[in-house]
Amino acid sequence: MAIGLTTPQNLLAVEGIRLGVAAAGIRYPDRNDLVLVEIAEGSLCAAVFTKNAFCAAPVVTCRQHLAVSTPRFLVINSGNANAGLGETGMLASKDCCAAVAELGDCSVEQVLPFSTGVIGETFPTQTLVAGLPAAYADLDENHWLPAAEAIMTTDTIAKGVSEQVSIDGHTITITGIAKGSGMIRPDMATMLAYIATDADVSSGVLDSCLRQAVDNSFNRITVDGDTSTNDACLLIATAKAGNDCITEIDSAQAGALFEAVAKVSKHLSESIIRDAEGVTRLMNIVVEQGNSKSECDAVAFTVAHSPLVKTALFAADPNWGRILAAVGRAGVPDLNVDKIQIYLDDICIVHNGGRDVSYTEAAGQSVMQQEELTVTIKLGRGDVTTWVQTSDLSYDYVKINAEYRS
Amino acid sequence: MAIGLTTPQNLLAVEGIRLGVAAAGIRYPDRNDLVLVEIAEGSLCAAVFTKNAFCAAPVVTCRQHLAVSTPRFLVINSGNANAGLGETGMLASKDCCAAVAELGDCSVEQVLPFSTGVIGETFPTQTLVAGLPAAYADLDENHWLPAAEAIMTTDTIAKGVSEQVSIDGHTITITGIAKGSGMIRPDMATMLAYIATDADVSSGVLDSCLRQAVDNSFNRITVDGDTSTNDACLLIATAKAGNDCITEIDSAQAGALFEAVAKVSKHLSESIIRDAEGVTRLMNIVVEQGNSKSECDAVAFTVAHSPLVKTALFAADPNWGRILAAVGRAGVPDLNVDKIQIYLDDICIVHNGGRDVSYTEAAGQSVMQQEELTVTIKLGRGDVTTWVQTSDLSYDYVKINAEYRS
Repeated sequence: MAIGLTTPQNLLAVEGIRLGVAAAGIRYPDRNDLVLVEIAEGSLCAAVFTKNAFCAAPVVTCRQHLAVSTPRFLVINSGNANAGLGETGMLASKDCCAAVAELGDCSVEQVLPFSTGVIGETFPTQTLVAGLPAAYADLDENHWLPAAEAIMTTDTIAKGVSEQVSIDGHTITITGIAKGSGMIRPDMATMLAYIATDADVSSGVLDSCLRQAVDNSFNRITVDGDTSTNDACLLIATAKAGNDCITEIDSAQAGALFEAVAKVSKHLSESIIRDAEGVTRLMNIVVEQGNSKSECDAVAFTVAHSPLVKTALFAADPNWGRILAAVGRAGVPDLNVDKIQIYLDDICIVHNGGRDVSYTEAAGQSVMQQEELTVTIKLGRGDVTTWVQTSDLSYDYVKINAEYRS
Repeated sequence: MAIGLTTPQNLLAVEGIRLGVAAAGIRYPDRNDLVLVEIAEGSLCAAVFTKNAFCAAPVVTCRQHLAVSTPRFLVINSGNANAGLGETGMLASKDCCAAVAELGDCSVEQVLPFSTGVIGETFPTQTLVAGLPAAYADLDENHWLPAAEAIMTTDTIAKGVSEQVSIDGHTITITGIAKGSGMIRPDMATMLAYIATDADVSSGVLDSCLRQAVDNSFNRITVDGDTSTNDACLLIATAKAGNDCITEIDSAQAGALFEAVAKVSKHLSESIIRDAEGVTRLMNIVVEQGNSKSECDAVAFTVAHSPLVKTALFAADPNWGRILAAVGRAGVPDLNVDKIQIYLDDICIVHNGGRDVSYTEAAGQSVMQQEELTVTIKLGRGDVTTWVQTSDLSYDYVKINAEYRS
């Protein structure tokens, strides 16, 4: 079960965005699995996608369409990732866009497709297309929560959040939803995340806003190190709030917007870790005193991906030897082991590369038994800090991933 | 339980090597946990150690002693890794060597210490030292199997093998033992492996022989990606076989010796994977048609470490999408997805980056249900081939590593 996460209660409408859902029967019986998002004319859209070389057909299509048009519709399905299907997958993705374009009276290039689910299974284009009219009829400004629910796969809970910020006397609303639970090690953005704001903002500022937000949220979480083929994160601005268009990245207005969008994406990315497959415990890994972001990241992700650290986390075992061994194999050049310090919350366990004299198993144990804890690793060689959030490796992680296709 | 592995039956004596075991009570009650190996004067020794920056005290001591002396004794314990203990650990390691030196009438520097077990727990020097006389009294040419058993930790079965080869009319014997089951991703050598031969061989040739053998055995296996702090592999040559000293790497004699040593180390490394923690299925990953060894290795190890691939392997699920996603995130520059082919044994599942038209789930399933299978990934961009062996991620892997310290 998810940790410290409840179904979002107050997802605010964003003027210019309407969402509709339907149960198309793509894979799961008796549940919504299809989402249509209508975006008002005059909106802008920034997007980031997976860096996996095997990106799925919808990702390729999105890139092509974004290069020539501004989107008017998103069509999102769960249950089938439309990945690894070669030319057939590309055709399926285009056919879905064409069907939406006809329904919504726009060009094919103004539709962006997104898929999440099993990789490599024939994509049921006709099934999806047959579900479109119901989703279209369901379009409503207040359907953010049904949309968040419809895009879930192994997620156990819907993920979404809203923020409001006042800019020049105008109330700006930002609402975002996301899905993701396994195959999570975003190298750009996680599985699927959609954030919309009614702010009026230039395309350059919107793009910077998204990239900055993603780098401090979705790019800092990992469940299993497995970067998905379908990762995508969108930030849409509908320009309905009435503010003067924000065109300067360094302006106070941009700063306020960036902060609010960053809050939304941090909430969404953290929600994904809180609902990670089989999660029983959440670990924040903070790496301090590094020489560079890249070496701090190497240490943080090596610790976060270590099956031995993750099983110790599951067992609430303060097995700091496993953390230390993971730090040691992270490939940091000329690492001086004697300068390293490791903390579990505020308990120092490793001092100068060895067990701290004041450390007791009881103290370590009490931190590890918490549902959430922070491991801080001080490298003693610089002033760069970075962080990563991860989950434990439990029986249920194995169960979920051994049974997912059966 | 281990796959296709039985207790070694015919470990041959190597003239010049005697082994003794004892139950010192270091961690495990009622079992042998201490090994002494006596090496005849005039022997040579080549060694490789972990590349983990946090190498354990015995590894540091070994390096110091090897720099000034040729070893006459090895002292090996299981149950405590003597790692992460700072100066205390170094003193413990030196004290153990001193006690052996006194017993065996040699210098402290002629003793090499090895430890395997839990990291970061106080090392019971006195307990080990108290067990030494019994181990010394037990020294015998035929005690390879008891030694293989005494160095086990989470191993379920002892690992060892002998080979014989005729060189210039002299029968050369090579016997090796190893331990290892978890925290296995050797970046030099696995946990602990000891190989001895009675061949007469120069130190340069012996060193090359070990490095070549290790690169094609211990450096090609991974259980969990967690490189240990204590990895060590030794190759000892006692020069008792009567052959002319082998001094030329390119000679037929060196070739024959290399081949036999390679067989022994391959058998030992494969034994470790066959007895990997929680193993139910073994996967050989062959990467072909790469541009370089490093990119082939990146693909092979990324697939081997993917929790999603490993849980699918546990479930006997031919979920090739997870393999494909792992290949795609391996960081190979300019990977042309359309040229990639993936085989399960001889069944083609991915052709030109998508599912092969002739592929059926039934065919994939029949391969996955085997205890051992080979995944071949053809990158279509060069002529370099590499391989890795790994195990699956099962409930028992989690159980073993969640309960190891309890």
